[in-house]
Amino acid sequence: MKALVFTATGQPTIEQRPRPTIVAATDAVVKMVKTTICGTDLHILKGDVATCNMGRILGHEGTGVVDAVGANVTRFKVGDRVIISCITSCSSCEFCRRGLASHCEDGGWVLGHTIDGTQAEYVRTPHADGSLHHLVKGASEEVQVMCSDVLPTAFECGVLNGRIKPGSSVAIIGGGPVGLCVTITAQLYAPLKLIMITRDTNRLRIAKDLGATHCIGFGPNAVKEVMELTGGRGVDTVIEAAGVPATFELCQELVAVGGTIANLGVHGCKVDLHLDKLWHKNIVIATSLIDAVSTGTLLKLLDSGKIKPDVLLTHTFSFTEILDAYSTFAAAALHNAVKVVINF
Amino acid sequence: MKALVFTATGQPTIEQRPRPTIVAATDAVVKMVKTTICGTDLHILKGDVATCNMGRILGHEGTGVVDAVGANVTRFKVGDRVIISCITSCSSCEFCRRGLASHCEDGGWVLGHTIDGTQAEYVRTPHADGSLHHLVKGASEEVQVMCSDVLPTAFECGVLNGRIKPGSSVAIIGGGPVGLCVTITAQLYAPLKLIMITRDTNRLRIAKDLGATHCIGFGPNAVKEVMELTGGRGVDTVIEAAGVPATFELCQELVAVGGTIANLGVHGCKVDLHLDKLWHKNIVIATSLIDAVSTGTLLKLLDSGKIKPDVLLTHTFSFTEILDAYSTFAAAALHNAVKVVINF
Repeated sequence: MKALVFTATGQPTIEQRPRPTIVAATDAVVKMVKTTICGTDLHILKGDVATCNMGRILGHEGTGVVDAVGANVTRFKVGDRVIISCITSCSSCEFCRRGLASHCEDGGWVLGHTIDGTQAEYVRTPHADGSLHHLVKGASEEVQVMCSDVLPTAFECGVLNGRIKPGSSVAIIGGGPVGLCVTITAQLYAPLKLIMITRDTNRLRIAKDLGATHCIGFGPNAVKEVMELTGGRGVDTVIEAAGVPATFELCQELVAVGGTIANLGVHGCKVDLHLDKLWHKNIVIATSLIDAVSTGTLLKLLDSGKIKPDVLLTHTFSFTEILDAYSTFAAAALHNAVKVVINF
Repeated sequence: MKALVFTATGQPTIEQRPRPTIVAATDAVVKMVKTTICGTDLHILKGDVATCNMGRILGHEGTGVVDAVGANVTRFKVGDRVIISCITSCSSCEFCRRGLASHCEDGGWVLGHTIDGTQAEYVRTPHADGSLHHLVKGASEEVQVMCSDVLPTAFECGVLNGRIKPGSSVAIIGGGPVGLCVTITAQLYAPLKLIMITRDTNRLRIAKDLGATHCIGFGPNAVKEVMELTGGRGVDTVIEAAGVPATFELCQELVAVGGTIANLGVHGCKVDLHLDKLWHKNIVIATSLIDAVSTGTLLKLLDSGKIKPDVLLTHTFSFTEILDAYSTFAAAALHNAVKVVINF
C-alpha cells in the first residue's frame, strides 16, 4: 500500500509499505476513505516531537471501512463505516476508567506517533472497541473527519475545561482549526461575549461568520479592546489556542477575577506565570490533551445539525496529491486554508 | 484606646487612638477579646503590601463583644460574642452574590489593610451582617480565632480548590499555620496519602501528630521520595503553602496526570510555568484569596469536635505584650511557634 512517511526532518514522502494485519485480538484494520493533516503532523516534520521516529507513517485522523477485526472486537465488524479517534483507549486501565484516555497505559496518542498512522491506504487501529466510532448519517463524511481530533479537542480542552457558562464572556486566542472549532462549540453553552483574537484577517472573518461576537487583531491593543468590551473586568474564560509565550501572556492579562484560562496550545518552552498578580484573583489554569470522551456527543450534535463546522473544510486533495496538501496546510494563511481533506 | 499601628517599615508600635464609632448603618463596633498575628501582617511591616498606608491599625483576625451596631444591622446586637472574618462582605454586590467576597466591591480584605483593624481595643467592622459570626459553644474562644482567616483559607484555597477526594494523594508544601490547617481540614475528604513537605523539623512533627501520613524535608530529595510513595505517578493534589518560586517549582514536579495544584502562597514575583511539560498532563492550577464562604461550616465542625486545631495555638500574650508577640511570631522557628493568641 502507499503511505505518507516521516523520513527526514521537514520532508514527508510517499512510500510503498506492507498492508497492516491484525496483531492483537482487539485490533481492527481500517481501509482509509478520508484523512486530514493536523498541526501536530507539521510539528513532527519539524523535529519537535522527539518520541516520533523516522520511518513512521503519519496521521491520527480519518474515516474508513473496517477491513478486518481481531477475535475480541465486539462493536465493529468488517464493512462498518467508521471514524478513527486520534486517541486509542484500552477502556480498562486506571486512566481510561477515570476518563483520562489521553494517558491510557496501552494507548493515548499513538497513531502516527509511536505506531503507524492514518495517512496510508490501510491502518491498524489497536483497541478498536474503545477507539473507533460509527459514522452518523446527518453529516457528510468529510465533516465527520473533524471528530477524530479537532472538534473534541476544541470542546474538551477548550469549552469544557474553560468552564464556559451561559451568559459568560469568552476570549479565544488563536484562529487555527482548533480555535475556530472552539468558536463553534463554545456556543453550545450560550456565552454572551465570544471574542476571537488572532493575527490572520481571513480567520477573523471566518470566526465572525461562525458566531464570534467580536473579532480583534492580536497585537498591543488587544488588552485595551477586551477591557473596553468587559467594563474593565476581563473575560470569564480565556482559551489559549496558539501555544507560544506571547499568547499565554495575553491570557493572564485578560482573565477576570474568578475566571479560567484553558490551555489548548502545544507549548515548546516554559512561560512566565505572574503569580504575584494572580495569586489572589481566584482563577483556574487548566491544561489538557484530548481524552476523546466527548466524541460520541459531538457526532450526535453533527448528526442533528446542531453544530455545522463545514466551512472549515477549505481544500480537498486526492491521496496521490498529499504532498501538495502538506504544502497548502503548512502555508495556510497564504492559501486561506483551514482544514484540508484527503480522499483515498 | 490602645492600638498596634504600622508607623514605619519593620516597626509596629502601640499608640493611643480614638475609639471607633458607627459610620454606616451596616457597621458594628466590636470590643476586642482576642486577636492574633498573620504572616500577612509581617509582609505589611516589611513594606510588601503597597496598598497599606503608614498609620494603619493592623490585624484582620479576632473575637470580641459587639459594643454598638448601626440601624441596619439585623443579625447581631450589642453584647453578642462574635468572630470577625478577615473578609468583609457587603453580601449584595455581584462578587458577593457569586461567592467571591474576596473581591467584594465594598469589602474584601480591608481590615488592617485599607481600614483600621483588629489589633486594637475596639474595631469598626463594616457590613457586620455579612462579616461577623456568632461564637459557638463547643470550642474555646482561642480556637475560634482561627476561623477569622487561617482555617477557612486552608479549607477553601487549599482543600476545596485542590479538589481533594476520598482515596486521593495530597502533598502540602509549607508547614506554616495555613499549611498545618490544610493538614487538618484535608482529612475531612479522607485522602489516602497526606504528605507534608517543609524545612522546619518541629512543624514536620506537628503535621505528623495532626494526621499527615508522611513527612518529608523540603530539599533535593523531596521529588524522589514522593515518587517512591506514589509509584512514580506523583500526587493528585499539591498544595502550595509557601509562596516562593522554589516551592511552586516543586509543585509542578510532583503533580500527577489529571491532578491539581492549589496555590495558597502569597507570591511576590512571577514564577516559571513549565507548560512544555504540563500542557498534555490534564492538570489544573487554582489560585485564590479566601472568600470566607466556609466559615460557618468550619465553626460547626469546631463546635462538634470534628476538627481540633488547638495544638496550633502555641503562645499566649496579653495585648500590652503585643510587641513581644510580634517578635516571637516573626522568629517562629526559633520559638517553635505556630499561632500566637493575644488577649485584651
